[in-house]
Amino acid sequence: MRRILALTGGVGGAKLALGLSRVLEAHEVLFAVNTADDFTHLGLHISPDIDSLTYALAGQNNTETGWGRAGDSWHCIETFAELGGADWFRLGDKDLALHLRRTQLMAAGGTLTDATASIAQALGIAHPIAPMSNDAVRTIVHTDSGPLAFQHYFVRERCAPRVERFEFRGGDTAELNPLIESWLDGCDGVVICPSNPYVSIDPMLSLGRLRERLTDLPVVAISPIVGGLALKGPAAKMMAELHVPATVEAVAAHYHDILDGLVIDSTDAEASKLIGIPTIVTNTIMVTLADRVALASAALGFLGDLTPAS
Amino acid sequence: MRRILALTGGVGGAKLALGLSRVLEAHEVLFAVNTADDFTHLGLHISPDIDSLTYALAGQNNTETGWGRAGDSWHCIETFAELGGADWFRLGDKDLALHLRRTQLMAAGGTLTDATASIAQALGIAHPIAPMSNDAVRTIVHTDSGPLAFQHYFVRERCAPRVERFEFRGGDTAELNPLIESWLDGCDGVVICPSNPYVSIDPMLSLGRLRERLTDLPVVAISPIVGGLALKGPAAKMMAELHVPATVEAVAAHYHDILDGLVIDSTDAEASKLIGIPTIVTNTIMVTLADRVALASAALGFLGDLTPAS
Repeated sequence: MRRILALTGGVGGAKLALGLSRVLEAHEVLFAVNTADDFTHLGLHISPDIDSLTYALAGQNNTETGWGRAGDSWHCIETFAELGGADWFRLGDKDLALHLRRTQLMAAGGTLTDATASIAQALGIAHPIAPMSNDAVRTIVHTDSGPLAFQHYFVRERCAPRVERFEFRGGDTAELNPLIESWLDGCDGVVICPSNPYVSIDPMLSLGRLRERLTDLPVVAISPIVGGLALKGPAAKMMAELHVPATVEAVAAHYHDILDGLVIDSTDAEASKLIGIPTIVTNTIMVTLADRVALASAALGFLGDLTPAS
Repeated sequence: MRRILALTGGVGGAKLALGLSRVLEAHEVLFAVNTADDFTHLGLHISPDIDSLTYALAGQNNTETGWGRAGDSWHCIETFAELGGADWFRLGDKDLALHLRRTQLMAAGGTLTDATASIAQALGIAHPIAPMSNDAVRTIVHTDSGPLAFQHYFVRERCAPRVERFEFRGGDTAELNPLIESWLDGCDGVVICPSNPYVSIDPMLSLGRLRERLTDLPVVAISPIVGGLALKGPAAKMMAELHVPATVEAVAAHYHDILDGLVIDSTDAEASKLIGIPTIVTNTIMVTLADRVALASAALGFLGDLTPAS
């Protein structure tokens, strides 16, 4: 089994992606990344999930902040605030360089895929990264405070408003990245990284025929919910607000039409028999690089044992 | 004499401007600044001369580099280069914040004057700064290597190509900043700072009726040429390439239709009698703040003693 598609969002998913990159050769995996969190800020094209993955694969993720680039500084954004600008989106000085470079490459006519590849190459990343689309898809979070652009909901408002529903604006016309489309031909299996099902994975699944094509392939997901909590980000809070229990069963149910197996944490071992599809129980809390590699290996082994559900 | 117009370019002129700001109240002087060096770089509106003046008046000019902001760092531009971007224009992290802020304010509909005022206020500057125009005027340096945008000539090519002529693209339609226009009504006199006559002062003089209106006012210039050399920048090299001797006489001749008096350095005392208009001889090499204030005082005293030439 050596042609894997991995679907990932930002920080949480990128941890597993790093593990996958240590057990799969560059030609054996394609990382498809959510871009519905992207936004234009200060004239810059910012792609938070691509950046989290890029920094993780380059060994440049900032482990102090949990986001952004390692060893970054804040001279620009602090000065920007002194000059009267809003600083709710904390751009590090080095991180800013990436946004400037992406914006420059795209202004010169490159696609988001081209820009991503150029930056990844400069950072020494061998594994291919495919933004889910070269077209703009933008998550709008409909909340009790009204509709909010994703980063406004997520960063500026710190996920405080109650979620009512999600809209992936542009998703109906955006084309699935042709790199992903062609990777699906002859693809051996799919790993859904432990990312937010609603705002990291669903935007991808809404594109073109991706969801339909995944029904014909072995698909395993790693539950982003552990012990009723989200390891990273607002997934559990969102589930509560959407009146969905924050459980591994609910994660399985969310992906019911495409999922052939779920990887759950030992904390949730009891729930294994309630899920209704094959599961494996292991440690899914990735602290060390060894944790990432072990979970990636376990997920790939599990995937190899499965055949398509339909 | 308490309504002074000062015309200035970047670093050299800004030294005198700082001196003027210490001897004139904020309501007694308007700093009109060259914007023909402005350019769009990485999507940012960069106004080098406005910035040099702003940093000088704020006490934030970088005395180590001679340009840019004091105490700046280079994390962004260095990372940008690592990502494959061109770094010939050295943007400091703090300096970058100013360009981001200006670009943001202008994208929101502000004029260059509005953006300049907002930034100046944030930096605690009381004296008004008027970009020469809110419209784009761009110096094209026609050289033996072909036409070059000013910053390409000045920074990227380090002034190496031989100058043939200058073009102020857009200058024929750009409107003189209304702030300058109205300041001229009741203006008591004009100080031309020791800036490059060709690329810092001439672009301003090319706008609207400014040159014509200056013929009716007392105008003194501080020679940017001292002992046959330019204290700052390529003025002397340009003069040689244009077959003009790099002398204080040539500076006077350059401004012949508007100039009523020239301030020259003691080094050039001998030339005083060759100039044909009133001169004062003093130290024009501004090293300390006291030098700046002394020269500003001398120029203003000289200006007070003059009557319009025509």
